[in-house]
Amino acid sequence: MLRLRDLVQRSVPPRNSPLYSGIWQRAGYKTQPGPQVTEQPGLARFSTAEATVQTGAGHPGRMREKSLTMASLSPQVKAVEYAVRGPIVIRAGDIERRLQQGVKESFTEVIKANIGDAHAMGQQPITFLRQVVALCCYPELLQSPAFPEDAKQRARRILQGCGGQSLGSYSASQGVDCIRQHVAEYITERDQGVPSDWNNIYLTTGASDGIMSILKLLVSGEGSGRTGVMIPIPQYPLYSAALSELDAVHINYYLDEENCWALDIEELQRAYLSAKQHCQPRALCIINPGNPTGQVQSKKCIEEVLHFAYEENLLVMADEVYQDNVYSADCQFHSFKKVLYEMGLEYFSNVELVSFHSTSKGYTGECGFRGGYMEVLNMDPQVKDQLVKLLSVRLCPPVPGQAAMDVIVNPPREHEPSYAQFIKEKSSVLDVLAQKARLTEQILNSVPGIKCNPVQGAMYAFPRIFIPPRAIQEAKARSMAPDMLYCLKLLEETGICVVPGSGFGQKEGTYHFRMTILPSPEKLTVLLGKLKEFHLRFLEEYSQEEAQSSSRHREEAQQPD
Amino acid sequence: MLRLRDLVQRSVPPRNSPLYSGIWQRAGYKTQPGPQVTEQPGLARFSTAEATVQTGAGHPGRMREKSLTMASLSPQVKAVEYAVRGPIVIRAGDIERRLQQGVKESFTEVIKANIGDAHAMGQQPITFLRQVVALCCYPELLQSPAFPEDAKQRARRILQGCGGQSLGSYSASQGVDCIRQHVAEYITERDQGVPSDWNNIYLTTGASDGIMSILKLLVSGEGSGRTGVMIPIPQYPLYSAALSELDAVHINYYLDEENCWALDIEELQRAYLSAKQHCQPRALCIINPGNPTGQVQSKKCIEEVLHFAYEENLLVMADEVYQDNVYSADCQFHSFKKVLYEMGLEYFSNVELVSFHSTSKGYTGECGFRGGYMEVLNMDPQVKDQLVKLLSVRLCPPVPGQAAMDVIVNPPREHEPSYAQFIKEKSSVLDVLAQKARLTEQILNSVPGIKCNPVQGAMYAFPRIFIPPRAIQEAKARSMAPDMLYCLKLLEETGICVVPGSGFGQKEGTYHFRMTILPSPEKLTVLLGKLKEFHLRFLEEYSQEEAQSSSRHREEAQQPD
Repeated sequence: MLRLRDLVQRSVPPRNSPLYSGIWQRAGYKTQPGPQVTEQPGLARFSTAEATVQTGAGHPGRMREKSLTMASLSPQVKAVEYAVRGPIVIRAGDIERRLQQGVKESFTEVIKANIGDAHAMGQQPITFLRQVVALCCYPELLQSPAFPEDAKQRARRILQGCGGQSLGSYSASQGVDCIRQHVAEYITERDQGVPSDWNNIYLTTGASDGIMSILKLLVSGEGSGRTGVMIPIPQYPLYSAALSELDAVHINYYLDEENCWALDIEELQRAYLSAKQHCQPRALCIINPGNPTGQVQSKKCIEEVLHFAYEENLLVMADEVYQDNVYSADCQFHSFKKVLYEMGLEYFSNVELVSFHSTSKGYTGECGFRGGYMEVLNMDPQVKDQLVKLLSVRLCPPVPGQAAMDVIVNPPREHEPSYAQFIKEKSSVLDVLAQKARLTEQILNSVPGIKCNPVQGAMYAFPRIFIPPRAIQEAKARSMAPDMLYCLKLLEETGICVVPGSGFGQKEGTYHFRMTILPSPEKLTVLLGKLKEFHLRFLEEYSQEEAQSSSRHREEAQQPD
Repeated sequence: MLRLRDLVQRSVPPRNSPLYSGIWQRAGYKTQPGPQVTEQPGLARFSTAEATVQTGAGHPGRMREKSLTMASLSPQVKAVEYAVRGPIVIRAGDIERRLQQGVKESFTEVIKANIGDAHAMGQQPITFLRQVVALCCYPELLQSPAFPEDAKQRARRILQGCGGQSLGSYSASQGVDCIRQHVAEYITERDQGVPSDWNNIYLTTGASDGIMSILKLLVSGEGSGRTGVMIPIPQYPLYSAALSELDAVHINYYLDEENCWALDIEELQRAYLSAKQHCQPRALCIINPGNPTGQVQSKKCIEEVLHFAYEENLLVMADEVYQDNVYSADCQFHSFKKVLYEMGLEYFSNVELVSFHSTSKGYTGECGFRGGYMEVLNMDPQVKDQLVKLLSVRLCPPVPGQAAMDVIVNPPREHEPSYAQFIKEKSSVLDVLAQKARLTEQILNSVPGIKCNPVQGAMYAFPRIFIPPRAIQEAKARSMAPDMLYCLKLLEETGICVVPGSGFGQKEGTYHFRMTILPSPEKLTVLLGKLKEFHLRFLEEYSQEEAQSSSRHREEAQQPD
């Protein structure tokens, strides 16, 4: 095999070589040095507009200026931040590779509690879902007695909906028709009869893709007419990243940490009124159950939010991907759609509402399949056509992910052969998650300087941490957020990877981190134990230094000049 | 089940109801009518910024102004056009549904020759690929004697690369490491030893996603500093759609129809120099083999293009998704990477080149899996970090699509059990495609008023059609492009769905359509026969009308006043 070092360096053909000179001459380029031309060794770079010649980097093999540099990079891309896979996680990858290479650390593995990636943390796939997708992928298996009849029936139905009965065909841009119909039936059942029209269902590449598509539609205007989108703080950073990418105004409304991260309607109004001064608020994003905050919204709160959106004519984006992840006995998931319906026809026929769901969360945790759907209510029909047009440029969501979504919305029924195993697996996942939610909250709250709201739902704890002033100073000196310093030290001392609260947004002067509750109960107990030790050590370290430093100051002060 | 019509209409709680009044009062809203308040029946809409009240649509259930309308929609989204799934295809869907409902037409089925969707046209999946993906989806099958050992070995390797050994885990944003390594090895082998570094490989959600990501990085500036991107005309409309979405300048360079759609370097320079006046050209897109044009570029032409990109410091985006689809005996696929390498180190170490590939084309046609990769050469390392950050917001490409890509780059080897069947299937698909390419070109060229360049590669014919002036007039009167009228009539009279050339771009005054060569040889023969009949009828109809209309004019002129 050839290697770079074996490359015979060839110089570029001279501008007047037979290969190029004709071309350049015909195009009006000068191929002979003239008054405007400064000859330099090696290559010359033409600035064609002026038909003069600038000198390039010169010698063969030497680097020269690039077309795409940090200076020329899209400023919107530059502005994007996404902490869930940010610097801490990149550092965790480095440490992991070091460990694999045999480098000794005070820990033997990196535990990635940074991302809601259930299978990576050992959660087992739901058998029925994987059977259906495998049957769709390789329909020869439909002849195999090893697969249950209900899984085969699902797979046959999905394949009938695919061009050429193959998962390898593009689906319609909105997704496979019969899967969209199953989604609509599922929503109707979930919402106890509130009607759902499959023409309002769009399958997506995970929920992120749907959220991004809706935001794309919304963003327009300049100056004080620029689109603003209301997002919770703390938020899942997809929202802020998408708004940065689209150059829309982020309108932050703060969740009430003192009140279990509840959404306070007055705060919503404050944020809205203040934003109105300099932009055009057009949409309101809500994450329920909350990410990273884990709260489950009350029906009353949802009513207030919808009323507010109605009054202010805001499109509501309800991120409901954790709708199956509710753990507290005194909480219940209320869909925005159902609450809107119950508020009466004036609301139900007017408020523009888009609800998002995903295969990645719930009890399936199928993140890698990139499946999801959105239900779009009361959208202007012409705008819906524009949405379909926009989606069609990307052709279609991945069809295996659509098939996975189909299983979630059309699971085995009581009379079917796979029902018992399906329910057992589903309950087991959700029961263990509920157990881990309690465990996490309890242990975190047992640590002095950590305070964690109940993890009512979703997959995360977002505890508030006390960071001593000395540590804050050090972080400032190192140009990082104080909770970034905390998380970095946690990672480097224990191998535990969590995400600083600053990546999600938080009230000025408060510090948090987000950790998933996904590791196995045993591992999670160990993790929380190590975290507790670390936190105490951290407090001690920075208080000690402070004490030492103060006493040093005192000593210095007592010494004679 | 509840239905909309069963809904008890409830009016919205009055603004001074216990539910809301407190909230609104605290927020500074007036809940009692005052001087600024005009009371109207039904609902009032607050304009909170001014704390005055405007009247809403009034009565419960009545529609009122929406937040998201055609007027407020993103102008970039509005500007997007994507003919491959445009009006003709939407119309085809309508007709298809009518046929399903038993409505009689002069044809019994709609033949969708609009999109490169091989499986939908009956192409069978490659067994080995589907076996590997099914094994990854449902690893219990690894125990089954029905699967060959080489497929199991591939699946085990892929699963080892996945978190928790599950296809359901998020992969790294760039894709699964071992698959990226296989891609790099594949490229090195394809390019006869030219080195490929897997750190430069990014797995993508089809090629479209990769192309979009690179364009996102590139777009910046305002006025004459706005990023321009050079695209071929005719082009695959993803490019124009993406540039519209990103609000970048389209710099069109015309392929030379008289010369088998060759890329003419002088035309490239003309387009560049002219664009330089009003924008900042930053990148050059090439599709080779061509879509929709089917040409395969010569090595000399690629050298010239790369030299041009070098001179003008343009990032080269090489869309090489049809690299396995070359049919003409006198053509050969040359990768931009290999040609760049052979031009010498000065080029190879400087030109920023991104090459795209996909699972959707070639001999696999796995469109639904949305798999692909890009290889990124000479990109600024900091910009690469920004690319990874951008990709990470979408978390990862679909992992089943990554697994499908793995099979393409790591197919069965000669000594392996699946080799014989794999080669048989692969050759069969490619041989039949080559046969259909010739068939299409021959039949089209036998029709008076149609002229088709050789289909050297890819999956499409893009014939030039003569449209009589009378038809052009009618199209203008109906506010549509003449070839849109042609394609619409073709669809409505024969059920054949092709895409007007105007959706891809074409020289002013010329007309084309794009059709795929994907239907089975039998179906394709029938399709081309019907197309021929239609075309002759179309010519006759519009010449006759013209003749009739002329003779009517003559008669009228001859009548006494």
